[in-house]
Amino acid sequence: MTDPNSTIDLKENERIDDLERNNLKIIQDTKRFCFGMDAVLLTGFARLKEGDKCLDMGTGTGIIPILLSAKTNCSDFTALEIQQDSADMARRSVKLNGLEDKIKVVDGDIKEASSIFKKASFDAVTCNPPYMIGQHGLKNPDSALSIARHEVMCTFEDVAANAAAVLKSGGKFFLVHRPFRLAEIMVTLSKYRLEPKRMKLVYPFIDSEPNMVLIEAVRGGKSRLTVEKPLIVYSEPGKYTDEIYDIYGY
Amino acid sequence: MTDPNSTIDLKENERIDDLERNNLKIIQDTKRFCFGMDAVLLTGFARLKEGDKCLDMGTGTGIIPILLSAKTNCSDFTALEIQQDSADMARRSVKLNGLEDKIKVVDGDIKEASSIFKKASFDAVTCNPPYMIGQHGLKNPDSALSIARHEVMCTFEDVAANAAAVLKSGGKFFLVHRPFRLAEIMVTLSKYRLEPKRMKLVYPFIDSEPNMVLIEAVRGGKSRLTVEKPLIVYSEPGKYTDEIYDIYGY
Repeated sequence: MTDPNSTIDLKENERIDDLERNNLKIIQDTKRFCFGMDAVLLTGFARLKEGDKCLDMGTGTGIIPILLSAKTNCSDFTALEIQQDSADMARRSVKLNGLEDKIKVVDGDIKEASSIFKKASFDAVTCNPPYMIGQHGLKNPDSALSIARHEVMCTFEDVAANAAAVLKSGGKFFLVHRPFRLAEIMVTLSKYRLEPKRMKLVYPFIDSEPNMVLIEAVRGGKSRLTVEKPLIVYSEPGKYTDEIYDIYGY
Repeated sequence: MTDPNSTIDLKENERIDDLERNNLKIIQDTKRFCFGMDAVLLTGFARLKEGDKCLDMGTGTGIIPILLSAKTNCSDFTALEIQQDSADMARRSVKLNGLEDKIKVVDGDIKEASSIFKKASFDAVTCNPPYMIGQHGLKNPDSALSIARHEVMCTFEDVAANAAAVLKSGGKFFLVHRPFRLAEIMVTLSKYRLEPKRMKLVYPFIDSEPNMVLIEAVRGGKSRLTVEKPLIVYSEPGKYTDEIYDIYGY
């Protein structure tokens, strides 16, 4: 195992968090965007095979490919990130975990993914995009947090268009988003021939509205959606359900 | 109360079922399509106001307007049905319940709704359309059961196009369908400016895939969907949850 103290430089406000799976660790900046349950649930939902070439669009700290490298047999990840500080953190986390052979971090814009990468070259794309529409109400639209949460740098249409362009025919797009945008998401995915094939709603409690939706769309797939059983997060306040413990790998 | 034996003629294979709400009854033909839980759940999901003018497209036995006349303050229902035998049964059920002032049964085709009725003339449209695509595998495509279950006489696009045409701006379209067609439904609703605003998935058990989806779309509405808490049908095999008992009105 790598000793983080000897090989990885931490910057101000950065800390190393234990991912509690395969001894994986991640560098996060407490002043910037830290990963949430949505990223973890996406890695539990995505299905990757050995030999797949996978692109994570807007990788942030790299949480999604780092977790997927442990949870799946896929060993060829590209992680695209527009914010240089985040990409730098992701690169150091990859090194910290000794994953340089599996995960390549690329500086770049989701909107340019289809020109940065070869068209129809990936078997899978993952994305935990910004959820909020536009910059309405934002005090600091160019802050790291705003860019991660709001559609400041790219819209969902940019995400879908570029995912579609870099995916092979039959390739899979795995995303997590907010249910309030579900209708628009379905319409936009269909527009780019990313056919929604599998969907799972995440309900905090059994008697609450869902706050996340996980979707698998297939490039050029036929129209038929499987809506999976609900994912309930808490069995009671403060206590995760077994399914959540299972996804987190505790 | 009306005495069915004195005023209503029953034909061969027909029976009168008690709806267990406000003494309502319905005539059904055991050899034809009998209403299911989907129709009942749609009447629990639809929100109608006093003064609303409501059209039920493809009413079958008239179950939806009959139940809605008891569950809501709406008192102006039009029930459109292409199958004359079904429309006749619906008409006799309306009479049996003394609802002639509230529910008018019209013989006609969903595909022609926008010419049968005035455009932009309804506040609400309800529909429990045929779920299955095309006539694939059908032995008797022109049987009453086939027409109720399969898209023999009309497609979902016909339903959406005609609902949109007869709805006022801001009018509401309430439908029940199968989750496997959800992506296509969202795309088609959006195409006709019927914006999905509210959705509820019906899961037979808490750990099963949903088998029904209830949707409210608003004519000309803005894009923002509320996905409601899950509707779980059974708390254990053979035992309904309280929410189902509540909708059924036991």
